[in-house]
Amino acid sequence: MANNEQCKNHDNEDWFVETGVLNSDQCRLTIKIGRKLIEKQSKYQNILAFENEKFGRCLVLDDAIQCTELDECSYQEMISFLPLNIHPNPERVLIIGGGDGGVAREVAKHPLVKHVVQCEIDSEVVEISKKYLPFMGVGFENEKLKLFFQDGYEYVRNHKNEFDVIITDSSDPKGPATTLYQSEYYQALYECLRHDGIICCQAESYWFDLEFIKNLFHKVQQIFPSLAYASTAVASYPSGQIGFLIASKSKTVDFKHAKHQEKFQKIAEKLRYYSPEMHSSAFILPMFVQRQLDQVLNNP
Amino acid sequence: MANNEQCKNHDNEDWFVETGVLNSDQCRLTIKIGRKLIEKQSKYQNILAFENEKFGRCLVLDDAIQCTELDECSYQEMISFLPLNIHPNPERVLIIGGGDGGVAREVAKHPLVKHVVQCEIDSEVVEISKKYLPFMGVGFENEKLKLFFQDGYEYVRNHKNEFDVIITDSSDPKGPATTLYQSEYYQALYECLRHDGIICCQAESYWFDLEFIKNLFHKVQQIFPSLAYASTAVASYPSGQIGFLIASKSKTVDFKHAKHQEKFQKIAEKLRYYSPEMHSSAFILPMFVQRQLDQVLNNP
Repeated sequence: MANNEQCKNHDNEDWFVETGVLNSDQCRLTIKIGRKLIEKQSKYQNILAFENEKFGRCLVLDDAIQCTELDECSYQEMISFLPLNIHPNPERVLIIGGGDGGVAREVAKHPLVKHVVQCEIDSEVVEISKKYLPFMGVGFENEKLKLFFQDGYEYVRNHKNEFDVIITDSSDPKGPATTLYQSEYYQALYECLRHDGIICCQAESYWFDLEFIKNLFHKVQQIFPSLAYASTAVASYPSGQIGFLIASKSKTVDFKHAKHQEKFQKIAEKLRYYSPEMHSSAFILPMFVQRQLDQVLNNP
Repeated sequence: MANNEQCKNHDNEDWFVETGVLNSDQCRLTIKIGRKLIEKQSKYQNILAFENEKFGRCLVLDDAIQCTELDECSYQEMISFLPLNIHPNPERVLIIGGGDGGVAREVAKHPLVKHVVQCEIDSEVVEISKKYLPFMGVGFENEKLKLFFQDGYEYVRNHKNEFDVIITDSSDPKGPATTLYQSEYYQALYECLRHDGIICCQAESYWFDLEFIKNLFHKVQQIFPSLAYASTAVASYPSGQIGFLIASKSKTVDFKHAKHQEKFQKIAEKLRYYSPEMHSSAFILPMFVQRQLDQVLNNP
């Protein structure tokens, strides 16, 4: 929390000031720390967990909020069920990152998913999530899941033609996560996927980072024949909006209409955010965003 | 900016800390002030306009961000075109509040709208918007518009059976705006509307204020036979999400499908956010929200 000391005495109380995200030189969320649960320096990063009256329990890595009890449902359910309900038969799933356990929790719920592999580099995030954020940490208890503490990119490079869906639940493109936004990574994902495979990756906010998203589209369309940006609402993220880059090896994929509705029905009633209608609406973008992305897609 | 001094030297630069909204005791957006344009105490409120690198020009009333150049399109276009494209023939429109001019700018664009009346209590907001926020202030130059500097509630009480659409562009339910969230106000709106008339009112965030929204639904369904909550994304508002309460005097209104698409076509290409598809998707709510609102609607 190197930079957070500056605002500590704001109202004579402890406030977390989010200095670890893109654009934090221009705007920052500040959240009152009701109770600090743990703060620890791991081999890879600073890990902080605290409680806030509105957000509930919050997980912070290197001064960037990763998830909060209030709104993690929208991120975890959407990054999981969007690709799982686009792919015709998502049996084998790979999760890169996602050390809090929330994505593993959702992916394992899907009735068609048989095997889940997860690569998280930092075992201490997993331990802290299990202990202090059990609503997400519970995701690691599923028997469909094999968890490796390993660099995700390395794992992807060493496995070819193995997965139907690969989900990259990474932090912002700064520091160590930068490699997860480069052409080489998307090429490795392409090769790691089976026939008709799909990737879903964190892809920033259209309000603050539209140029970054356009650039990403430009890179990824050199590799995958079909791609789209899907949006979701996350109260604790900068701008309250975040999107996912979804790309398929199939030329004729239908991104907007959720498949598997009959089988999915039995878990749908337990979800907090996702529905087949929300799936479709995630692809309806503001006109200024759609026009800009169309421009990239029409000029490969 | 009574409470904002505390964080002024954050990084030895001026930062605006949003202390004037609901829940600001728990979390706050802080925005770097690139250049202060004006700060003035009017008869009614403190008015601040400044520039930020990401958000562009920002308008703040009593320490609460009202709109920014970056994202005002989503609020202004959605609060205007949602009700205008639900009503079968929106000829006469009343705007309560909206002193920045953004809603008047959008409403006047609609090809079916013939007359617009606006009641804004604070003439100084209008003057500051014209001078410092001309992209919104331009809204006051339309010949369809009659602008009154008057209390909106008083105007509504004194006009019966006059408008097809009434838009309430108000601040949060605290201080003077509190009356705009009470049953008496919605009853007066009902009487001010013509046959099949529709209201559209700012109705807070489902992330932070779901209990407030449920309460509002409970009040309004005692008066209007049809009502719904529509959501939009606004980067500069707390949680990045805000919704509108839309209610109709008609029992059989179709909220979700935008009318007038053929006539609307000619202005659609100039809009930055709204589209008929975005209209429909605004009514697709997270499952935890839909379930809670259904519970209120099914138990009037």
